[in-house]
Amino acid sequence: MNTIITISRQFGSGGRTIGRMVAEKLGIPCYDAEIIEKIMEETGFEKKFIEEKGEHTNMGGWLARAFAEHDFYGQNTQDYLWTVQKRIVRELAEKSDCVIVGRCADAVLGEKEKVIRVFIHADQEARAKRIVEQYGERPESPEKRLKDKDKKRAGYYQYYTDLKWGAAEHYDVCLNSAHLGIDRCVDIISSLY
Amino acid sequence: MNTIITISRQFGSGGRTIGRMVAEKLGIPCYDAEIIEKIMEETGFEKKFIEEKGEHTNMGGWLARAFAEHDFYGQNTQDYLWTVQKRIVRELAEKSDCVIVGRCADAVLGEKEKVIRVFIHADQEARAKRIVEQYGERPESPEKRLKDKDKKRAGYYQYYTDLKWGAAEHYDVCLNSAHLGIDRCVDIISSLY
Repeated sequence: MNTIITISRQFGSGGRTIGRMVAEKLGIPCYDAEIIEKIMEETGFEKKFIEEKGEHTNMGGWLARAFAEHDFYGQNTQDYLWTVQKRIVRELAEKSDCVIVGRCADAVLGEKEKVIRVFIHADQEARAKRIVEQYGERPESPEKRLKDKDKKRAGYYQYYTDLKWGAAEHYDVCLNSAHLGIDRCVDIISSLY
Repeated sequence: MNTIITISRQFGSGGRTIGRMVAEKLGIPCYDAEIIEKIMEETGFEKKFIEEKGEHTNMGGWLARAFAEHDFYGQNTQDYLWTVQKRIVRELAEKSDCVIVGRCADAVLGEKEKVIRVFIHADQEARAKRIVEQYGERPESPEKRLKDKDKKRAGYYQYYTDLKWGAAEHYDVCLNSAHLGIDRCVDIISSLY
């Protein structure tokens, strides 16, 4: 049974950096949003998915497209991407132990693998500093940007998982990366592996 | 500046046990609900508090009591206990480094001390088992008992602190004691001291 470390994180908390450092320390792969999107493109998952759905749906290709051009056989684009992502996350988890950052992996996995669920957060001030310095965000109102991003993440997560994003009880460990420091977070998470 | 470890916890999660073990490991005192109540009785805090309030309130003793027998000079019993508790928690924090379990200490402290805020939780099944085995609760519907106790704690906390109990972002570290085990929780918390 593979062990998967999932990292949910507030925007600007350094969760992705922590995920990469944990993976490096443990010698296992780390998949984040960018990498998973790249996999989606490279593997032609989209094509395969559409073909499969096409075989099983009552509402065939041209009819579905006629109803809504941005729909994929009755699913809207977001639902479609959710389904694809979920399958990719599950396939990655079946391959080997790994770290997965974001993508609601904590809610998607758990039946076939041992999951260590982590949530990383930090004070607003520390996150605002981080997104300006490290992510190259514009310094105008980073607070608003943080609020918008977190609101979207929370909404997306809740919509697809029926769980409350950032509620301590959903995770094995939640850490404040600003108070504890990135290195200590990496140590704590690695020690749970 | 004293360092105070505050432990908030879901009912039946073993938070009190973890607090005591952390304190023992670090060689500092641990104050939990029972101990704080005992201090309240022993120090005659109640008497002192009433005398003080009596000097400053416009609505003197007999009049206040006439309006509501369970009121203490305009405060109801719960508000009164909250004020006393808050003062005792602050006095304890001024004395020395320590662990404080419950009593909203995480929200009360922070101005004059370095606070390490911890939240301990666990799966419902593990907590139900714990309260029957260790706390001697009756085995009939421990789930309902857990729900009631947590609801009360969350409501009390939110009412007096304006914060959401169990939201990861309020704490430095949140740990699932059932998945991680009591000993590992103790190790992680002690390592932050």
